Amino acid sequence: MFRHVKQMQYTVRVAGPNPGLANLLLEQFGGPQGELAAACRYFTQGLGDEDPGRKDMLLDIATEELSHLEIIGSLVGMLNKGAKGDLAEGVEEEAELYRSLTNGGNGSHTTALLYGGGPALTNSAGVPWTAAYIDTIGEVTADLRSNIAAEARAKIIYERLINVTDDPGVKDALGFLMTREVAHQISFEKALYAIRDNFPPGKLPPIEQYAHTYYNMSEGGDIRGSWNSDENFDYVADPQPAVDGGDGLSKVTLSDKQNTHVENMAIRTQSDPTINPLTGTDLGKGIPKEQQ
Amino acid sequence: MFRHVKQMQYTVRVAGPNPGLANLLLEQFGGPQGELAAACRYFTQGLGDEDPGRKDMLLDIATEELSHLEIIGSLVGMLNKGAKGDLAEGVEEEAELYRSLTNGGNGSHTTALLYGGGPALTNSAGVPWTAAYIDTIGEVTADLRSNIAAEARAKIIYERLINVTDDPGVKDALGFLMTREVAHQISFEKALYAIRDNFPPGKLPPIEQYAHTYYNMSEGGDIRGSWNSDENFDYVADPQPAVDGGDGLSKVTLSDKQNTHVENMAIRTQSDPTINPLTGTDLGKGIPKEQQ
Amino acid sequence: MFRHVKQMQYTVRVAGPNPGLANLLLEQFGGPQGELAAACRYFTQGLGDEDPGRKDMLLDIATEELSHLEIIGSLVGMLNKGAKGDLAEGVEEEAELYRSLTNGGNGSHTTALLYGGGPALTNSAGVPWTAAYIDTIGEVTADLRSNIAAEARAKIIYERLINVTDDPGVKDALGFLMTREVAHQISFEKALYAIRDNFPPGKLPPIEQYAHTYYNMSEGGDIRGSWNSDENFDYVADPQPAVDGGDGLSKVTLSDKQNTHVENMAIRTQSDPTINPLTGTDLGKGIPKEQQ
Amino acid sequence: MFRHVKQMQYTVRVAGPNPGLANLLLEQFGGPQGELAAACRYFTQGLGDEDPGRKDMLLDIATEELSHLEIIGSLVGMLNKGAKGDLAEGVEEEAELYRSLTNGGNGSHTTALLYGGGPALTNSAGVPWTAAYIDTIGEVTADLRSNIAAEARAKIIYERLINVTDDPGVKDALGFLMTREVAHQISFEKALYAIRDNFPPGKLPPIEQYAHTYYNMSEGGDIRGSWNSDENFDYVADPQPAVDGGDGLSKVTLSDKQNTHVENMAIRTQSDPTINPLTGTDLGKGIPKEQQ
Amino acid sequence: MFRHVKQMQYTVRVAGPNPGLANLLLEQFGGPQGELAAACRYFTQGLGDEDPGRKDMLLDIATEELSHLEIIGSLVGMLNKGAKGDLAEGVEEEAELYRSLTNGGNGSHTTALLYGGGPALTNSAGVPWTAAYIDTIGEVTADLRSNIAAEARAKIIYERLINVTDDPGVKDALGFLMTREVAHQISFEKALYAIRDNFPPGKLPPIEQYAHTYYNMSEGGDIRGSWNSDENFDYVADPQPAVDGGDGLSKVTLSDKQNTHVENMAIRTQSDPTINPLTGTDLGKGIPKEQQ
Amino acid sequence: MFRHVKQMQYTVRVAGPNPGLANLLLEQFGGPQGELAAACRYFTQGLGDEDPGRKDMLLDIATEELSHLEIIGSLVGMLNKGAKGDLAEGVEEEAELYRSLTNGGNGSHTTALLYGGGPALTNSAGVPWTAAYIDTIGEVTADLRSNIAAEARAKIIYERLINVTDDPGVKDALGFLMTREVAHQISFEKALYAIRDNFPPGKLPPIEQYAHTYYNMSEGGDIRGSWNSDENFDYVADPQPAVDGGDGLSKVTLSDKQNTHVENMAIRTQSDPTINPLTGTDLGKGIPKEQQ
Repeated sequence: MFRHVKQMQYTVRVAGPNPGLANLLLEQFGGPQGELAAACRYFTQGLGDEDPGRKDMLLDIATEELSHLEIIGSLVGMLNKGAKGDLAEGVEEEAELYRSLTNGGNGSHTTALLYGGGPALTNSAGVPWTAAYIDTIGEVTADLRSNIAAEARAKIIYERLINVTDDPGVKDALGFLMTREVAHQISFEKALYAIRDNFPPGKLPPIEQYAHTYYNMSEGGDIRGSWNSDENFDYVADPQPAVDGGDGLSKVTLSDKQNTHVENMAIRTQSDPTINPLTGTDLGKGIPKEQQ
Repeated sequence: MFRHVKQMQYTVRVAGPNPGLANLLLEQFGGPQGELAAACRYFTQGLGDEDPGRKDMLLDIATEELSHLEIIGSLVGMLNKGAKGDLAEGVEEEAELYRSLTNGGNGSHTTALLYGGGPALTNSAGVPWTAAYIDTIGEVTADLRSNIAAEARAKIIYERLINVTDDPGVKDALGFLMTREVAHQISFEKALYAIRDNFPPGKLPPIEQYAHTYYNMSEGGDIRGSWNSDENFDYVADPQPAVDGGDGLSKVTLSDKQNTHVENMAIRTQSDPTINPLTGTDLGKGIPKEQQ
Repeated sequence: MFRHVKQMQYTVRVAGPNPGLANLLLEQFGGPQGELAAACRYFTQGLGDEDPGRKDMLLDIATEELSHLEIIGSLVGMLNKGAKGDLAEGVEEEAELYRSLTNGGNGSHTTALLYGGGPALTNSAGVPWTAAYIDTIGEVTADLRSNIAAEARAKIIYERLINVTDDPGVKDALGFLMTREVAHQISFEKALYAIRDNFPPGKLPPIEQYAHTYYNMSEGGDIRGSWNSDENFDYVADPQPAVDGGDGLSKVTLSDKQNTHVENMAIRTQSDPTINPLTGTDLGKGIPKEQQ
Repeated sequence: MFRHVKQMQYTVRVAGPNPGLANLLLEQFGGPQGELAAACRYFTQGLGDEDPGRKDMLLDIATEELSHLEIIGSLVGMLNKGAKGDLAEGVEEEAELYRSLTNGGNGSHTTALLYGGGPALTNSAGVPWTAAYIDTIGEVTADLRSNIAAEARAKIIYERLINVTDDPGVKDALGFLMTREVAHQISFEKALYAIRDNFPPGKLPPIEQYAHTYYNMSEGGDIRGSWNSDENFDYVADPQPAVDGGDGLSKVTLSDKQNTHVENMAIRTQSDPTINPLTGTDLGKGIPKEQQ
Repeated sequence: MFRHVKQMQYTVRVAGPNPGLANLLLEQFGGPQGELAAACRYFTQGLGDEDPGRKDMLLDIATEELSHLEIIGSLVGMLNKGAKGDLAEGVEEEAELYRSLTNGGNGSHTTALLYGGGPALTNSAGVPWTAAYIDTIGEVTADLRSNIAAEARAKIIYERLINVTDDPGVKDALGFLMTREVAHQISFEKALYAIRDNFPPGKLPPIEQYAHTYYNMSEGGDIRGSWNSDENFDYVADPQPAVDGGDGLSKVTLSDKQNTHVENMAIRTQSDPTINPLTGTDLGKGIPKEQQ
Repeated sequence: MFRHVKQMQYTVRVAGPNPGLANLLLEQFGGPQGELAAACRYFTQGLGDEDPGRKDMLLDIATEELSHLEIIGSLVGMLNKGAKGDLAEGVEEEAELYRSLTNGGNGSHTTALLYGGGPALTNSAGVPWTAAYIDTIGEVTADLRSNIAAEARAKIIYERLINVTDDPGVKDALGFLMTREVAHQISFEKALYAIRDNFPPGKLPPIEQYAHTYYNMSEGGDIRGSWNSDENFDYVADPQPAVDGGDGLSKVTLSDKQNTHVENMAIRTQSDPTINPLTGTDLGKGIPKEQQ
């Protein structure tokens, strides 16, 4: 269950109305790296996680992100307040207000005011928030990596927003929010490293033959680094199609008999790196080894 | 520039038509963790990256993901082939086909066939692919973390798809694709660790006072772990609002004079952890220290 | 600021695994009438409302809807638990599980399991939640009417979900949630009626001449009711185009002089119902009365 | 069947080209509160309604909204006409036009011109119209409430658009459209009140014990009003979790036997307010009363 | 202005309830090739077109498509009618109904019933209609080609729907609707061919040097046809990068002086096919010819 | 399989930074008529096509469109380069940059910079790319018509972009890209005309009685042209509802017996134009001819 406390987690101070800045801040209210996205990401993971400690952490942080959503939404409302205040005065002032803002042009900025100046669940370009931003998939080592990356991205957006304003109260609050993303990133990293065998994620082993290969798919000069060095990878300078030794085309060929065969092999230990551990296919020939 | 080679990177073999499985495989064609998403993520990063080695890696892997997109799409087409083949025979057969597939019910599965049985850029529930899935933000340490997480998620989806089928040719190809995600994850991790000072991402330092705090926002028993241990964090068992020492409300208070002041402080070294390095605000009092 | 309490607002009991029902319940997790939509609707209104009592009510109810989101999400997780539990056993069982669920076909149901069986922010057809569902516009009498309607719709969806299941624990929890929508609807109606002059919404008066007209736009027999009776409305049996007395076409005709004129009239009292109070246009002739 | 009349319902006059205003008006062409949304809302309800009078009203108003869509679309075209006219002159003029509009910047405004200056089915920020805006659910008392709210919202958007322009012809037409929303709102209210027992919507009764409770979920001072007064509600100042008397956790507990039991109880009259009428659960104890 | 006639353009007869078929028909109600998409495509074009004959044709056909939308929506309602009728009986029957439909599984089909069984603006997989389906761009030769293609696609979807059902009344109505798409396609082709110089669309001429080249981008055997024959095209068997003769990289090189120069050349006649008519660049050398 | 060549297909030259223009160019990166849409349209068709020559053409052109996507993306990056370069200098410069760009206002333009200045998969208004733009349906004559239309639209957008800039290098590259759309349009037209019996698309014949009728649905003066002339069409000046001779209402009437009857008739030759060839219904009477 959730409770709400009428004081916010951080005091919101603004120097004065600034609808343009209000609109930019929407990026962290209803944008892809924003606080609603963060809260929803961790909340859905927390509900699905059966480890009590990790579930707790996920719900703690989800709850804090909701508190941050409140801070950002309040900043938006304060920065639009003059605008909204003027709206309450009378139609003449409202007209003046809109005209001064639109400057003969238009933008998502004006749309936000058309909607009343409160915080809207859009990004700074006016695009409605979508759950397509949420990448929870219910496997803990993948989800924690997603969280680490999400916190890193959110930190950067806060940094850019801090650089785009000179209202000290807004900078102050954004600095707090930016810092909390860093703290959360550390928590998620600690939680990931607390899991043994966190790589590769999941239960199925990779196929040895392809797991350490780097295909240089771009012609025009090789550039080598730790990400494709021979120490870490088999570097293939001129990749050819059909790495499985087949013909690289599509066909209907396998019998029902092999079907059963594969079932039995699915969990066997992979002792021969030239055999696909999932199907027993000889990777050099494209057909099951037993049939050669 | 891209070139296409008519042979695929991996030979596609299917045991026979299976439109239901074809539909599930759409998850990796037009779904959030699928190959188009992967290719677009790395391609947009690669175009924007100015480090030649990393740019190269990103475009290599983007190109390989496009080749994987072709493999998945060809599998979808092959598995729907009976369906599509029957469609070519005549209207009676087509009617029979559809009726046998719908079983008096319906689903995104049937929609896929309504669209002709070729690979459609939707996930397995029929939701069209959207660039909202792409989380590129143009800061390399954040983007590489996003890539590591994306590869982990894709690996898991392949693993689940492998478990849901017993067609050995499909399992075989999916095993290859799953393995390549693991290899790419390693490349991205190597590339991240090749960057000095990759944490925290970006240029602005966190505010020391909030960077190592864990707020226990969930009442009902504390559970501790490395993600909130006192060794790593200041653990706040009963968080109160207004951590900045203010009143937790929103207000218009700051003068223009402070404004300039803040500008000058933005890049100074943070020597006093109770001062917000961005604005010079004394974090215990909610006002700039110099004014006390 | 928000706090989380580890116990839920209502105890969640399920008779056993039921992934099909879990999927249907997603309608109230990530669907248009669901709990996230409700929480976001009231939260955005509450942040923007300056009346302390109404702001309080909106945030109270938003917070309760978050607590309901937790209940629905926990039901989804419990109903998928067998599925998820089996997933943990090993690949063979996972394969069996998926195959039994898909029945050779497919649907958004299977997609949900592909995503790990936790609660996903989609509706029951797999469509991701979007802020396009949120109709907050920042004018209180319109927003309260939107809330009344939203609660009515949510009540109906819960009723249909109750009818679709026979798991008594699920029925029980859904009955609680359905009832709370009714209670919230009453609160919003009370709040609306506590506002004087709540109709018509906003500040500009309607143009008298068109405010009580009913145009019978459908040929083929008149049906009359209170919604178009002569007592309430001027009933126009055979509506003609150009009700303003013009020619019904589009043209560039008005001078700059009229422009200023209109400005001055915008707030005058509407004493003559044949005059457009916004522009002074004589509604019978399509030109300003002063110019006749 | 629909027919089109070449004259519009209202004459469209504009003082001159004004692409910025054209763009704002798109809000009521392809925006959430716009005329396409209105027409689609009532048309889908009308097709599904079996009461001949109400069906008629819904299709009458849907048809009028299509006529309004034509008015708004024609205004947009007229206001862009200079732009479009210039486009026809030659490439030099087109270039000049675009450059003058973009002012070195950009916005959804320019995008609209890139698309040719005709009315596009987007809102004023360039977001494409989506049926996610349509909240028809096929239960008449809920749908009529949705319509009342939708008309109230549309009235407000027209009011804001009237205030943002000083083109008297545009103000005039918007005044007509705004007024018609008021008239439609009255019709929908009359139609709702013509239905006996229109509250609560649907067929299932609420659970008495929770139907008149107000939970004060926000700590920090109580504010009371008619929406949570003791006269209307049982006011719970400090809500606790597990209002059903359970433990607030999730569990698998109920037997198959109860399953049948619940079926039989589903339609019984609710004589004891401490019993959940849907399941017979004793609300104070969290288990069926018969089992105590 | 629009009028509605209570009789439909075509009589709707169904053999009996069939919710599964109802759901498939939604493809032409709220799907990408459906009647709302058609009506919106032609309506937006018609409002923007200044040729009176073509405007008339576009609005005639838009109006007919609205009448078709009514036919499809009525078919959906009739086919769900048993379902909806049963819903009115009582909760027991409703429960029975849902259970029989879901078969322990789920799908967009069930979602449609959750929404009340009326026609919803989604496709057959439950995806909400979006104006992203509308490709109007305000240039008549492009728009007419879009319309020809749209009618062809709609014809095919109707054909597939006819094949998927054996309800003769539904087949009959779908046959009418399919035929009308053919008639509309002919009208749009006639209208396109009535425009002189309809190819290439627009005003700017293509650059001669690249306008008749076919790049064989796929290695692995050439296949020639009229679409890449030497008669029609310069066939480039092994395309190289940097076809402009440059180095294929990106750079900042051009001076302000060239800038002005280009302005003056923009409308000159293209007399030399090796010169880019837009900029005067010598296409063989990557720099303006005058500077060589 | 795809390969990447590090040189681009066309050299990208820009005169200097121009973030506003960069933003406009996004229209062809992530907009509906852009290069990703083109590549995806032809790639999905190519994978599904079984004619080897046409498949080859589709994949050739898809591959070239990917190469164009690279060109546009590189232009965007170059034009934002100053911005991005300044971002790397330090926080003060970044702040200055943002402030100069936002000018106290905002727009999708600023959002693009918030995302780091690299190419984002949105259109120029910031709307994320969606596969709803892709109209592939897997029937070759419809798909080729869709391609012809898509190339025509893309040509127009390039033309408008050329007119909106005066950077000669950008104009040059856009001229190349515009020209290639023309060349592709020719290829698709050649491929369409190479198919015998390409009209009407698909296999089912239209119903003769309705295939050559033009319904004049718009009252207010007839305008005739080749698209509705008596030579091509039966022109119906005053269309009546129920063109099938029925009553234009919806009803349940047909027996199971007719059901079988229809099945047998589905493929018969249409010798009598007053009979629906799909169902044998006498079109003048609304019932099967055999029953009269």
